[in-house]
Amino acid sequence: MTNTLTVRHLFGPGPSNPYPEATEALARPLIGHLDPQFLEIMDRACDGLRQVWGTSNRRTLPISATGSAGMEAAFVNFVNPGDVVVVAVNGLFGERMCDVAARCGAEVVRVDFPFGQPVDAQKVAEAHPNPAIIAAVHAETSTGARSDIAALGAIKGDALLLVDAVTSIGGIELKADEWGIDIGYAGTQKCLGVAPGLAPFTVSDRAWERRVENPRSWYLDLGMLGGYVGETSGSASRTYHHTAPVAMIASLDAGLQRILGEGLDAVRDRHYAAGQALQDGLEAMGLELFAAEGYRLPELTTVKVPEGVDSAAVRKELLEKYNLEIGAGVKEFASTVWRIGLMGPNAAPDSVALILGALKDVLGK
Amino acid sequence: MTNTLTVRHLFGPGPSNPYPEATEALARPLIGHLDPQFLEIMDRACDGLRQVWGTSNRRTLPISATGSAGMEAAFVNFVNPGDVVVVAVNGLFGERMCDVAARCGAEVVRVDFPFGQPVDAQKVAEAHPNPAIIAAVHAETSTGARSDIAALGAIKGDALLLVDAVTSIGGIELKADEWGIDIGYAGTQKCLGVAPGLAPFTVSDRAWERRVENPRSWYLDLGMLGGYVGETSGSASRTYHHTAPVAMIASLDAGLQRILGEGLDAVRDRHYAAGQALQDGLEAMGLELFAAEGYRLPELTTVKVPEGVDSAAVRKELLEKYNLEIGAGVKEFASTVWRIGLMGPNAAPDSVALILGALKDVLGK
Repeated sequence: MTNTLTVRHLFGPGPSNPYPEATEALARPLIGHLDPQFLEIMDRACDGLRQVWGTSNRRTLPISATGSAGMEAAFVNFVNPGDVVVVAVNGLFGERMCDVAARCGAEVVRVDFPFGQPVDAQKVAEAHPNPAIIAAVHAETSTGARSDIAALGAIKGDALLLVDAVTSIGGIELKADEWGIDIGYAGTQKCLGVAPGLAPFTVSDRAWERRVENPRSWYLDLGMLGGYVGETSGSASRTYHHTAPVAMIASLDAGLQRILGEGLDAVRDRHYAAGQALQDGLEAMGLELFAAEGYRLPELTTVKVPEGVDSAAVRKELLEKYNLEIGAGVKEFASTVWRIGLMGPNAAPDSVALILGALKDVLGK
Repeated sequence: MTNTLTVRHLFGPGPSNPYPEATEALARPLIGHLDPQFLEIMDRACDGLRQVWGTSNRRTLPISATGSAGMEAAFVNFVNPGDVVVVAVNGLFGERMCDVAARCGAEVVRVDFPFGQPVDAQKVAEAHPNPAIIAAVHAETSTGARSDIAALGAIKGDALLLVDAVTSIGGIELKADEWGIDIGYAGTQKCLGVAPGLAPFTVSDRAWERRVENPRSWYLDLGMLGGYVGETSGSASRTYHHTAPVAMIASLDAGLQRILGEGLDAVRDRHYAAGQALQDGLEAMGLELFAAEGYRLPELTTVKVPEGVDSAAVRKELLEKYNLEIGAGVKEFASTVWRIGLMGPNAAPDSVALILGALKDVLGK
């Protein structure tokens, strides 16, 4: 165990380096989970989450676990055994949705698309005449591809639209209400620029009315959680469910205030600009991007490992020489694709220059 | 929203004030969840957890959510639908176990004891001839009573013994292996002196062999989590499950090192001494303790609200005048009992003097 601290440049698929405001908040004196001061922080964090989700949903809250628990909460609270759930799969997280939905007793109808491509709303619509839920990933962390959620909202019919926004929230355009998202979950450790540990969550009134009364999960039971985050305002109405992770929520609040202070449009522009500069730079180096043109995430770039190059050796050298982390690809692309994230504070010209310079050096370009 | 920071004395049932080492670690530069440096921290944290649990269980790890998720993991991974689960209930957390077990499909056999009293192993043994699981709470956070877990281990027979150690771990004596605990969960925000957000967990080999193959929860699936925390040592064997809450785990590691550096026996003596001094002081003030004599937790004292005193008004004055938080009682004791925690760094003479002095003032004693 080393005693010196290392500063890593977290340019992988997440966690990203947090905003300094978020880190500072983690180390503030701890307060109680029912302290009036904490309830103020929680309320402000929920308001901030509404803004980054693009929603006026009353039920918008941070779930007390990481993004993957958000996925579980999304299914366990809305799937009754035997419900048909159509899942659009174009990457690892779509696949995971199938597993999670099946454990909730869903009849899963899986619609596959090639990794790196967006999902096609028309094919999703044709998969089943009357699903209870249609589920898709907005920004596939495993492939770097963005899908058109508004198009899914347009074809959802009576179904609830369930969306993974883990890698889009706080980075690229996200308009939950306008696009028709009924159930959304995300993570804190990507573009929101906060350490991992919470799952921002939002539920439309339409979905709320159809929720499972007594879900299989006690911890993720939204009916019980709702009492704690305040169906109505004021501390008098708060009921204890579980001890909230107060330090993490203070950090989320600080990160959200940082983003809202800069302005959502400015933050998005910064992510778009950094991603474009990185992708241009990689192509100028002769590298080939992986995700389909027109659907590439600026905050998470996937690029093919050049023929004959050892993916793991490059990642190791970047980490050891430059303290710079990038991610491997997933599944059959584990050794043939790299994933480079520029999220939160890392969506900036210095990070672009650093990763391009370091990669040029290590690849001998 | 105030801009000045308040230092609260967290003398309620938790969260407690963290050890300064744990707070400092939260704000260290973030590293990736697959970084070799992080895996070292995770391994060291798991080793530290083995020591505070009193176990050599290979499967000892922090679950990525609060203590209540630990409870859920304990049941969802070991209860098959129809399994008989005997739950000893002497407080709120025993009651919660019944709810959680039922959601996992258990046939729950509930054995009730008065709030404030320990559970009686003989009555638990007589409740069912052949249960799959016997479950109990070591230190009932809702009542301040300690139960004899070794006595339950002695009568468990073929059943698995499942124990809530949320409010005992890192404070009072806990000997998972010696007492026969097969499945144990805890929290970080009590005597371990770390912010809330993780659930220390341990599983015996005997329990592991009987785990549910494909549990209803994906997030809490120990079979999948096992691959991440390292069934075998070395980073090569780690497989990605979910993004670990790296900051929280670094903080847990730092808190554990703080405790182990002081020495487990010394830490326990400090908790016993502080609790005894507090309880003596309260009785000297003419107040009556709630939990049964001989079974009182030193780290969490329950005391009856004097006749004619407004419980909430006292708590409010303590918070506003002294920045001092104590807890209300639960359920029918909500306004007739206070809960005073002296946990982690607060198990010390200065905290005892402060709470006794403040309470004397507010009560006009």
